[in-house]
Amino acid sequence: MACGIQGDKIMSNHVYGVILAGGSGTRFWPLSRERFPKQLLRIIGEGTLLQQTFERLLQHIGAKHMTVVTNDVQAESIRLQLSKWKDDLVDNIILEPEGRNTAPAIALTALQLMHRDPEAVMVVVPADHVVTAAKKFTRAVQFATKLAEQGHLVTFGIQPSRPETGYGYIQPNKRRRLRAQGAFVGYSVARFVEKPDLPTAKRYCRSGNYFWNSGIFVWKAATILEEFALQQPILSKLLNSLQRQVGTLEFPAALRKAYAKMPSLSIDHAVMEHSARSVVVPVDFGWSDVGSWGSLEEVAPLDKAGNVRNGNIIDIGSQNSVLFADRRLVATIGLDNMVVVDTPDATLVCPKDRAQDVKAIVNLLKQQQAPEHLEHRTVQRPWGAYTVLEEGPGYKVKRIEVVPGKRLSLQLHHQRSEHWVVITGIARVTRGEEVYDLQAGMSTGIPKETAHRLENPGVGLLEIIEIQNGPYLGEDDIVRLKDDFGRLQPVG
Amino acid sequence: MACGIQGDKIMSNHVYGVILAGGSGTRFWPLSRERFPKQLLRIIGEGTLLQQTFERLLQHIGAKHMTVVTNDVQAESIRLQLSKWKDDLVDNIILEPEGRNTAPAIALTALQLMHRDPEAVMVVVPADHVVTAAKKFTRAVQFATKLAEQGHLVTFGIQPSRPETGYGYIQPNKRRRLRAQGAFVGYSVARFVEKPDLPTAKRYCRSGNYFWNSGIFVWKAATILEEFALQQPILSKLLNSLQRQVGTLEFPAALRKAYAKMPSLSIDHAVMEHSARSVVVPVDFGWSDVGSWGSLEEVAPLDKAGNVRNGNIIDIGSQNSVLFADRRLVATIGLDNMVVVDTPDATLVCPKDRAQDVKAIVNLLKQQQAPEHLEHRTVQRPWGAYTVLEEGPGYKVKRIEVVPGKRLSLQLHHQRSEHWVVITGIARVTRGEEVYDLQAGMSTGIPKETAHRLENPGVGLLEIIEIQNGPYLGEDDIVRLKDDFGRLQPVG
Repeated sequence: MACGIQGDKIMSNHVYGVILAGGSGTRFWPLSRERFPKQLLRIIGEGTLLQQTFERLLQHIGAKHMTVVTNDVQAESIRLQLSKWKDDLVDNIILEPEGRNTAPAIALTALQLMHRDPEAVMVVVPADHVVTAAKKFTRAVQFATKLAEQGHLVTFGIQPSRPETGYGYIQPNKRRRLRAQGAFVGYSVARFVEKPDLPTAKRYCRSGNYFWNSGIFVWKAATILEEFALQQPILSKLLNSLQRQVGTLEFPAALRKAYAKMPSLSIDHAVMEHSARSVVVPVDFGWSDVGSWGSLEEVAPLDKAGNVRNGNIIDIGSQNSVLFADRRLVATIGLDNMVVVDTPDATLVCPKDRAQDVKAIVNLLKQQQAPEHLEHRTVQRPWGAYTVLEEGPGYKVKRIEVVPGKRLSLQLHHQRSEHWVVITGIARVTRGEEVYDLQAGMSTGIPKETAHRLENPGVGLLEIIEIQNGPYLGEDDIVRLKDDFGRLQPVG
Repeated sequence: MACGIQGDKIMSNHVYGVILAGGSGTRFWPLSRERFPKQLLRIIGEGTLLQQTFERLLQHIGAKHMTVVTNDVQAESIRLQLSKWKDDLVDNIILEPEGRNTAPAIALTALQLMHRDPEAVMVVVPADHVVTAAKKFTRAVQFATKLAEQGHLVTFGIQPSRPETGYGYIQPNKRRRLRAQGAFVGYSVARFVEKPDLPTAKRYCRSGNYFWNSGIFVWKAATILEEFALQQPILSKLLNSLQRQVGTLEFPAALRKAYAKMPSLSIDHAVMEHSARSVVVPVDFGWSDVGSWGSLEEVAPLDKAGNVRNGNIIDIGSQNSVLFADRRLVATIGLDNMVVVDTPDATLVCPKDRAQDVKAIVNLLKQQQAPEHLEHRTVQRPWGAYTVLEEGPGYKVKRIEVVPGKRLSLQLHHQRSEHWVVITGIARVTRGEEVYDLQAGMSTGIPKETAHRLENPGVGLLEIIEIQNGPYLGEDDIVRLKDDFGRLQPVG
């Protein structure tokens, strides 16, 4: 196997990072939204969970060897968050036509990697987990790679610290110990166990003979495809029907057709539980899937009273609580084991042990078609961002930020006129045939049906207040005539 | 005594309503603010507490016989809320130069009423209490008036329903029963007791021999002034020094001077505790002083789970909680005996039994000079209201509502330019020498140092979005040139 030295890290040329970034993460509502799920959030430390995951893999995998699996809705936000590596990723963002759990996503990626490198070893990681000990993670992946090269399907097992009922468990076969580079690294798997009930979880926890299933996997693309063929013949057949189209223009349509027939299965159910090649490597790299607001305390820094605190909080005597604010003021008194999360358009208050029920709130909002489940008041765009300050009958007020050198699409609206008032920076305005610059305190009006464009020609941020007037103010009343970001469909 | 028939109500021509409306009511933060205290809030039912208090007294007292005692900061809001009776109240809003608790406010009002009517009977009520049985209240006041005419100082006693430590208690002298119109109406007072500790409150509650002190009083102006002279000679002397100025132009300055020397005393401490003329009338008119968020459940309608709910709440399984939202969404799960109050710029979360500590939060905010203790994002004005949508360095965005036929002052700003975009209705704009009308979707710019005025000449509401630009955006950068509301000092 070819290896190269890069800095002080040993890198196999056949190792590929596969980041699963398709989750919707309703359990972090109201900070997460359907269109802005958990992996896109800055929850702990620098960067979002997706960025942290990407940088963690970069410790031993080159950016060109990264693949991100996601969907249409999130693709733009993901490209934005990973824009530092956009040249490396240009062909390596895989869009699933629809969500089908982890098995089809992994099978599809394995197929594509096999085309690129028949020796490919895949390190499969969810985009929304936290790992606090990055060096230990790298070391664990290096050992796991050795096992993968021997033909094993490797998963990482976490020593349980409490009888958690939200995780799957793995029972190792302690008589079948595995070695790599001369050292003990793990066990064959005796069995995988679904999320247990509380008494069972307590028993597992006491016995010391079970690991939490971290959902992080390492294997050769060839091995996992063999196992799919053995364990999931229908899925495998659908996948093989795509073989000829990989890399061609017909691929997206063929994929859409195949996906519609795919079974929705987790990789655990589809393969790991049934395969004789499954092994578990015990690890201790500060892992959490941060599956709910309640679990944040495992990984976030705590104040002296055991609270996770973020943003503009004023508190008297609260303890063991998760207090998450933004710019608005949140005042708390004497809370114990509570969760308070405040965002510009929605606030959540619940006991920590009810944090899983946030899912039910999101479902209720969905039924009511309330916008608060879908997206935030602030929406990121490739040219910057906009924030809805207020909307009412016939009008909407936005603050629009444009980063230096960027511009929005040349566009027009059928149903609304707009007024722009510059509050910071310089705005270059195209309106019909005219082009002119505006400074802070200057304004312009854009009649409906008039082609217009907003550009930041300056070196600092441009911020404007936009007031929209009209009978219909949806983001889909945008006719894009030209766009720097290839977005000529109407999605804002 | 002269009586007149008005509708089916018997009205004494010597009865006067005195509404004490100077309180700051920090305990209802964040719904109340220093500049927008509890009496100005719509907490339960139609109208604000002040409006409800005024209308309750109107059942047996004519509007011209009402006096409202308040201060400079609240006067404008009070006039606005009572604008229906503005002609009746024109000379009957007494402004205290500074807050000195209830005794000086009552003494001052008694002095003024004596000048007007030496036979005056005062019904003194705080502006921020709730009374749910208005007819019983009227009946009780009628009996109390009879006792007052006999020279008694009447207070109303409430049968305690729990060992409340936030109220004062009154022990009646059950051997000295009082009659009016041939029926038993009350007792002489054995003693007044300050807010007790919990064991004492429990004992009082069990004994059945104590009443809560409601803080509502009925007496002749002459009687209370005699008692002030007996019990509070310093206060009485300061007051008497004002005798000659009452009704003259010198009065305000003389009052300011006298007030600076006034002792800060409650009427209970100053007079009631010491007077042999104090009597208590037991009443049952659904009284609450709604002294905190926790006490709201006594008077507000409850849902099946015992929650007080208001505004845009989505809840799963909460009970016995106070959930107060506005337009923003508040999601709650499994709360028990909690208070959640959400306003556009601040949110409060605490257990119900810690609701009294809101005062400490307000003090902390005051120390930090945080704007959230002082006023709301929406500020009422005699011409309508404005709401701050967002402010940042160098800009502020407001929605301004102007009611039909009203106009803002003719004004200019030294430090800011403004842009107005009409979203509803018709705006008549004065800018320098020009006057022009704008409709929805039209806009105009007002340079700094330019006299301007906004007017609603239409029959519907006018709403505009105002964007301010400039280095200083305080409400005090308003130079008023002309004003329909006599406000030529710079206060917004």
